[in-house]
Amino acid sequence: MSEEKQYEPPKVWQWNKDSGGKFANINRPIAGATHEQQLKQGQHPFQLYSLATPNGVKVTVMFEELLEAGIHKAEYDAYLIDISEGDQFGSDFVAINPNSKIPALLDVSGDEPVRVFESGAILLHLAEKFNAFLPEDPNKRTQCLNWLFWQMGSAPYLGGGFGHFYAYAPMKIEYCIDRFTMEVKRQLDVLDQHLADNEYMCGDEYSIADIAIWPWYGALVLGQLYDAAVFIQADSYTHVVRWAENINQRPAVKRGTMVNRAWGEKSQQLHERHDAADFHNKTQDKLAES
Amino acid sequence: MSEEKQYEPPKVWQWNKDSGGKFANINRPIAGATHEQQLKQGQHPFQLYSLATPNGVKVTVMFEELLEAGIHKAEYDAYLIDISEGDQFGSDFVAINPNSKIPALLDVSGDEPVRVFESGAILLHLAEKFNAFLPEDPNKRTQCLNWLFWQMGSAPYLGGGFGHFYAYAPMKIEYCIDRFTMEVKRQLDVLDQHLADNEYMCGDEYSIADIAIWPWYGALVLGQLYDAAVFIQADSYTHVVRWAENINQRPAVKRGTMVNRAWGEKSQQLHERHDAADFHNKTQDKLAES
Repeated sequence: MSEEKQYEPPKVWQWNKDSGGKFANINRPIAGATHEQQLKQGQHPFQLYSLATPNGVKVTVMFEELLEAGIHKAEYDAYLIDISEGDQFGSDFVAINPNSKIPALLDVSGDEPVRVFESGAILLHLAEKFNAFLPEDPNKRTQCLNWLFWQMGSAPYLGGGFGHFYAYAPMKIEYCIDRFTMEVKRQLDVLDQHLADNEYMCGDEYSIADIAIWPWYGALVLGQLYDAAVFIQADSYTHVVRWAENINQRPAVKRGTMVNRAWGEKSQQLHERHDAADFHNKTQDKLAES
Repeated sequence: MSEEKQYEPPKVWQWNKDSGGKFANINRPIAGATHEQQLKQGQHPFQLYSLATPNGVKVTVMFEELLEAGIHKAEYDAYLIDISEGDQFGSDFVAINPNSKIPALLDVSGDEPVRVFESGAILLHLAEKFNAFLPEDPNKRTQCLNWLFWQMGSAPYLGGGFGHFYAYAPMKIEYCIDRFTMEVKRQLDVLDQHLADNEYMCGDEYSIADIAIWPWYGALVLGQLYDAAVFIQADSYTHVVRWAENINQRPAVKRGTMVNRAWGEKSQQLHERHDAADFHNKTQDKLAES
């Protein structure tokens, strides 16, 4: 620790391109497009440009839930954005999302194309558009939005904090791992106490609050994120585990987590999604493999 | 750095109550109330329990903007939550916000009290309730919500990341300061490029997106946050500075930033707010002082 203590920040910060650990090549102190890019566009009302990280999964699960509920107007094309290759800095992507983060959505269902970015904003946009997965009762709706915003403000401590320092940083820094583990465990306890009295985040209604929270905190306790379930004592959050396992069984969730996935088991990867049959064909692949 | 590299996280994380730096005493890995508490309640339709941190300021500015716009139904009582004393862990506060963070709002304007927590959720709740500071045109509304959610997902890198490691952590860790400075500068550049072509975040309409972003990124470039304006070269973000200075002049912003403030110049502190005259009396105090 002694050497760290001696570090004195300069008066004006300078960009050292060698620092940053894993993903250093995609972290920049400047915004905007780095190259010309023409994104593909399909025939459906919604064009999604994404990747199956937790923030990406929120949106693909939402689309699959809408379709599962028989809302055919929610048909979508999903294209893979390879963030390790810098696709998020291409001109077309930046034109949709100037923040260069997945997921980015182009809603072409109306007269003019509508850009939607930030996973929480996309969930709310779709929920309002289709009157689905958002309670109609004003008080319940507010509670649902409380938890949706809670997820947006909390998960950076899980992803950009805990996940980074526990799994990705080039060195293990005890202070940082302690700091973010403490916060993530507090967040899990917030959820655990809430889910002790509620089947879902907003009572008995499965909603966009669950859809937002599950890919982060559900995946974490199910051991699908950062391989950290033992470290954070995931099984002590019994109500979160019950809720996470329950959601994990939903057909739409099984499909949604496959879309734009570019790692792990091949049979679970559907790089692009254009039709419900794409999953079926995938399953056929799997059967053929076995 | 060598000692840091040698640190190996244990198999299961343990709570070390001595770590944590400034605010270590209010960071816990568990949720829920630590003590019985009875919060005061006033006569107005909205009861706010908060503190003038950036997330708190968002909401007090919103209330003052609503009142400035002649919306008298937005009258509110604001009570100080002293987070250094653990007020956020009191039973009444936790009953409103199980996440134990300010701001927390009780909306008692209707038949039943409605709990609203997370600053972004509070802004949206009030904007929808009063049809104010949220564009009516569906596309513009979506753009406004994109930026509102952007703020919620981005500011943890400014507050919990940059601010913590630059200003509050018990030691200066170069890797962490570099990591979060890079991200904050990228975010400032996102805003700067957007504000080059837009007077406000959503075009020519001042909205909850501005109200959410200003107390963080506006205060940062104005040198009001972490004393970091030189370090991050704030004056290079000319469009953000123009926008921040413009908003800084709004009467409602001048009032809103005083409410629940418990540090700095005495004349700028209004610990509790119950009436528009409270600011006037404050100004009288100031005149009397000079």
